[in-house]
Amino acid sequence: MSDEREAQAGPSPEPSDPLSGDPLRVGVLGARGRMGIEVCRAVDAAEGLELVAMIDQGDWLFNASDAGAEVVVDFTTPDVVMDNLHWCIDQGISVVVGTSGFTEQRLDRVRTWLSHKPGVGVVIAPNFGIGAVLMMQFAARAARFFESVEIIEQHHPKKLDAPSGTATHTARLIAQARAEAGQGAAPDATRDEVPGARGAEIDGVRVHAVRAAGLVAHQEVLFGTTGETLTIRHDSYDRTSFMPGVLLAVRSVRNRPGLTVGIDDFLA
Amino acid sequence: MSDEREAQAGPSPEPSDPLSGDPLRVGVLGARGRMGIEVCRAVDAAEGLELVAMIDQGDWLFNASDAGAEVVVDFTTPDVVMDNLHWCIDQGISVVVGTSGFTEQRLDRVRTWLSHKPGVGVVIAPNFGIGAVLMMQFAARAARFFESVEIIEQHHPKKLDAPSGTATHTARLIAQARAEAGQGAAPDATRDEVPGARGAEIDGVRVHAVRAAGLVAHQEVLFGTTGETLTIRHDSYDRTSFMPGVLLAVRSVRNRPGLTVGIDDFLA
Amino acid sequence: MSDEREAQAGPSPEPSDPLSGDPLRVGVLGARGRMGIEVCRAVDAAEGLELVAMIDQGDWLFNASDAGAEVVVDFTTPDVVMDNLHWCIDQGISVVVGTSGFTEQRLDRVRTWLSHKPGVGVVIAPNFGIGAVLMMQFAARAARFFESVEIIEQHHPKKLDAPSGTATHTARLIAQARAEAGQGAAPDATRDEVPGARGAEIDGVRVHAVRAAGLVAHQEVLFGTTGETLTIRHDSYDRTSFMPGVLLAVRSVRNRPGLTVGIDDFLA
Amino acid sequence: MSDEREAQAGPSPEPSDPLSGDPLRVGVLGARGRMGIEVCRAVDAAEGLELVAMIDQGDWLFNASDAGAEVVVDFTTPDVVMDNLHWCIDQGISVVVGTSGFTEQRLDRVRTWLSHKPGVGVVIAPNFGIGAVLMMQFAARAARFFESVEIIEQHHPKKLDAPSGTATHTARLIAQARAEAGQGAAPDATRDEVPGARGAEIDGVRVHAVRAAGLVAHQEVLFGTTGETLTIRHDSYDRTSFMPGVLLAVRSVRNRPGLTVGIDDFLA
Repeated sequence: MSDEREAQAGPSPEPSDPLSGDPLRVGVLGARGRMGIEVCRAVDAAEGLELVAMIDQGDWLFNASDAGAEVVVDFTTPDVVMDNLHWCIDQGISVVVGTSGFTEQRLDRVRTWLSHKPGVGVVIAPNFGIGAVLMMQFAARAARFFESVEIIEQHHPKKLDAPSGTATHTARLIAQARAEAGQGAAPDATRDEVPGARGAEIDGVRVHAVRAAGLVAHQEVLFGTTGETLTIRHDSYDRTSFMPGVLLAVRSVRNRPGLTVGIDDFLA
Repeated sequence: MSDEREAQAGPSPEPSDPLSGDPLRVGVLGARGRMGIEVCRAVDAAEGLELVAMIDQGDWLFNASDAGAEVVVDFTTPDVVMDNLHWCIDQGISVVVGTSGFTEQRLDRVRTWLSHKPGVGVVIAPNFGIGAVLMMQFAARAARFFESVEIIEQHHPKKLDAPSGTATHTARLIAQARAEAGQGAAPDATRDEVPGARGAEIDGVRVHAVRAAGLVAHQEVLFGTTGETLTIRHDSYDRTSFMPGVLLAVRSVRNRPGLTVGIDDFLA
Repeated sequence: MSDEREAQAGPSPEPSDPLSGDPLRVGVLGARGRMGIEVCRAVDAAEGLELVAMIDQGDWLFNASDAGAEVVVDFTTPDVVMDNLHWCIDQGISVVVGTSGFTEQRLDRVRTWLSHKPGVGVVIAPNFGIGAVLMMQFAARAARFFESVEIIEQHHPKKLDAPSGTATHTARLIAQARAEAGQGAAPDATRDEVPGARGAEIDGVRVHAVRAAGLVAHQEVLFGTTGETLTIRHDSYDRTSFMPGVLLAVRSVRNRPGLTVGIDDFLA
Repeated sequence: MSDEREAQAGPSPEPSDPLSGDPLRVGVLGARGRMGIEVCRAVDAAEGLELVAMIDQGDWLFNASDAGAEVVVDFTTPDVVMDNLHWCIDQGISVVVGTSGFTEQRLDRVRTWLSHKPGVGVVIAPNFGIGAVLMMQFAARAARFFESVEIIEQHHPKKLDAPSGTATHTARLIAQARAEAGQGAAPDATRDEVPGARGAEIDGVRVHAVRAAGLVAHQEVLFGTTGETLTIRHDSYDRTSFMPGVLLAVRSVRNRPGLTVGIDDFLA
C-alpha cells in the first residue's frame, strides 16, 4: 500500500490538482465518535475526496500512512490530539483538527513541529460552521457603519451558558471594530428598566439569550441607523452543519503550509 | 342641521346599514392634534364614513351635534375627555376614545352615564392597533400548548421604558393562560449567566428589550415545544397603524351599546 | 391481563381522571415504523401515560386488549388501518390515527361503526403539529382585518410539490375568511413583472415557495394594513414535532366520543 | 466670500483633517426637493460638517463657491445635473451626486472633465443606503460557499416592478460569484408546481416579490447548505435611510480624486 502513496507523493510534491481526476486521499481519526462518524459520511459522499482510513481508539495510526492518506481529519480528544498531530506532521501528512482544548502554548508547539516540515499544513478550528464564521466576519465589517447593534441568540433550553460562546465572540469582534472606527456608545434612552430587560453587556454590546424547546442554535445580529436596519442571521439545525466547513478545510489545507487557526482565511 | 340628524335617527333607531348607501356621519374632537389629524384624514378617505365636524380647543362641541355627527372620535387630553364624553352621551352620540388616563373610577362614571342612555355606545381603548391586539389574543391562545415562551420586543432608542407596556401586558396574559392550563415553569438549564442575558422576568415569562436606531415598534412572541416553534410578530411602522382600528371601532360602536374597553371584542 | 382492564373500565365508565394517579394505558400500532418509534418514545416519556403494547406487522391485535390498552395510536398504512379501526372500536378502545389515505367514504364507514359504540372516540388527523394547526387557525382569524396577505413557505430542496399542502390549505382558509368578510382583492400595482416574481395564486392569495438546502419545513403568513404588519411563522425541525399533538389527542380522545377529524377542536 | 475659501484651500491642498476642528463646508443643489430637504437637515445636524449653501432652481451656482463650499451634494434632475457637475469640477469643488439618469456615456464625460482637475473627487451613486450596499456585498461574498440561495424582497403594494431593482441587482451579483466559484444550479426536486410558486428566475437565482400594505422596502437573501442557513436582511423604513450614506460620501469624497461610482468603496 505504501508504494502507491509514495508513487503519488514522490514525483509530485505539489498538492493534488483538483482538476486532475485523482481524488484526494483522506483519513479520519476519531472515526467512531459522534463527529467522526459524520466526517466519514461527508468525505465518503464528497466529490474529489476518497475516504482511505477510519481510525479510532486502539487502531494504529500507521493505517493512515499505509493507506496513502494525504490529509487526516482529527476529531478526537485533548489528551491524544497532540500525539496524533506530531505523528502526522512527521509523516508529511496535512491535518484538519476539530478537537478542542488548544492553548496558545499548544499552538506554539505545533508551529515548531511544522517549521521542520515546510510542505505540511495544519488547520485547527474551534468552529467549522461556514455560516457562523461568515456571520461573524460580516458583523465585524458592518460594525463601524451603524450607530446601534445588538445580538439576539436563541438556543435549546438544555444549554448551560448564556450568552453562547459564539455570541460573546461576536460581541467582542463588533466592539473592537467600533472602537477602531471611533464609534461611541449606541444611543439608549432607557431610564426605567425591569432588571435584565436590556440584556447582558459584553464589551459594551447588548446581548440577549433566548431559550426555548424546539430551538436548536440560532443567532441574529441587528444593526441600525437612521431609517434602516441590517440583520445577519444564522440558523444551525444539526451537527452536519459543520461538514461543509470541514470539507472546505480538507480541500484547502495542503495549499496553505504551516498553521492556520480558524477557517476564516478559507472564506476570504 | 340637527333636523337632518333627527330625520335620520328618528325613523330608524337601528344603526345605519353599511349597505344602505348613507354614510355614517363622524365628528373628531382634538382634530388638530397629532393623532386627530390622522383620524380626520382616515375618516375622510374611508368608504361609508363622512367627516362632518373637526373640533379642537376653543371650538364649540355643539358643532358636532349641529353637523349631525352619529359617532364622535376623541383624541384629546385627560383633563377634558370626561366633559366631552358626558356631553356626547347626553346628546345620544356614540364615542370612540383614544385619549389616555382612564382609571377604574372614571370608567365607572362613564358606565353610570350610559345606563341612562341605552342606545349609546362608548369604546375606550388604550391601543387601536389591530395587529397588536391580535398578537396578544393569539399569544394568550397559544400559551397553554407550548412548554416554552419568550418575548422579544424591539424599539427605537428614544424609548424610556424597557420592556414596553405592550410586552409587559402580553407577558401577563401568557402567564395567566399558562397558570390556568397548569403549565409549570419553562425548561431552562442555564447555570452560567452573564447578568441580564436571559432578560427580564415578568410573571415568570422572559422578556428581552432591544433598542436600536432605525427601529420603530416591533414585538415577537416565540413559542416552542418538541421539534417546532411558533412565532407571532407585530411590526408597527408609524402612527397611521392605529387608523384601521379606529375606523373599525367607529363602524362598530353603535352596534354595541354601553361601555366597551379595548377593541378586542371587535376582533373576535 | 384482560381482568385488569375490565377492573379499571368496569366500575368507572368515565374517562380516567388525569389527577387520579392512574396512568392512561396506551398501545401503539405500527410501533416499529418511522413515526411509530417516535410515538412509543413519546408515550413512554409522558407523564400520566403508560405504554402497554407495541404492535407491528405480524403481531396480534389482541395484545393491545390483553394489555388493557384504553387508547391505541395507529401509524400504519392505508391497507390495514381500516381493519385496525374496526377491531379497536369493536373492543371499545379509543383510537388516535395518523395514517393517511382517508377518503370521505372511509370516514363515513368509521362513523357508522362508532354509532354502535357510543362511548368510543376516534381522532383522525392529517397533521398533528400543534404549531401548524394554530398557525392556520390564527391566519383564518386575522384574515378579515387586513387588506393584504401573502404566504411564504420554505422547505428542503427534496420536496416535490410547490407550494406545500399546508400552504395551499392555509391560502384556502384565508380566502374563505376574506370572502365572508367582504374583503376584495389585495392592493397590487405591479405592472412590470418578471414571470413568477409575484408567486402562485391560490384562490386569490399569493403563495411563494422557497427551496434551500439546510431548511426543514417553515411557513410564514404575512398580513399588512396601513402602517403595520402581523406575521405568523411556524418552524418545524423534525418529525418529533408531531408528538405533542399526538399526546394531546391521546389524552383528549376519550372525552370526545364519535369521530373527530383533525386536532383543531382540541386547540380551541 | 471667495477669499475665505481660497484662504482655506490655498495653504492646505490636503483634504481638511477631520480632527482639525475646522468643519467641512457643504453646499446642497436641489435643496428644496424631497431628498434635498433631508440632505440639508442631515448636513446641518452632522458633526464636523457645516451647511454653507442651499441652492435650488433659479438660484446662482456661484452661491456655492462664494460660500466657500468644499463639497457639493446634488439631488437635482437629469436635465441639469451635467451642467452642475461641469461647473463644480471647474471650480475645484468635489461633488456627491444622487441624481439619476447616468449612462456610461455621461460617466465618460465626467471622467474627461475630472482628468483636468486631479484634486477633485466625484461620487455618483444610484443607492446611498449603507445597509442595502452592505447586504449586496455580503451576499456576493457568501454566494460561493452555499449550494442554495434565494431572494425574498418585500415592498408596499404601490410598487410597479417585481422584483425590485435592488433584488435583480443582488441576484446578478450572486449569479456571477457562483459562476466564478464553479457552483452549479441549486438543488431543487420540484416536479409539481403551481405556476409562479417558485418565483422568478434572474440569472438562475430564484427571486420572490411580496407586496403588502404596511410594508416599506425590505429584502432577505437566504443561503443554505447542509444543516444550516445564513440570512442577510435589510429593512428600509423611510428616505432618511439614505442620509448616513450621503454623509459618508461627503466626508470621503475629497480623499478619493476622480470618479467613483457607488458607495461600495467607502464601505470596504
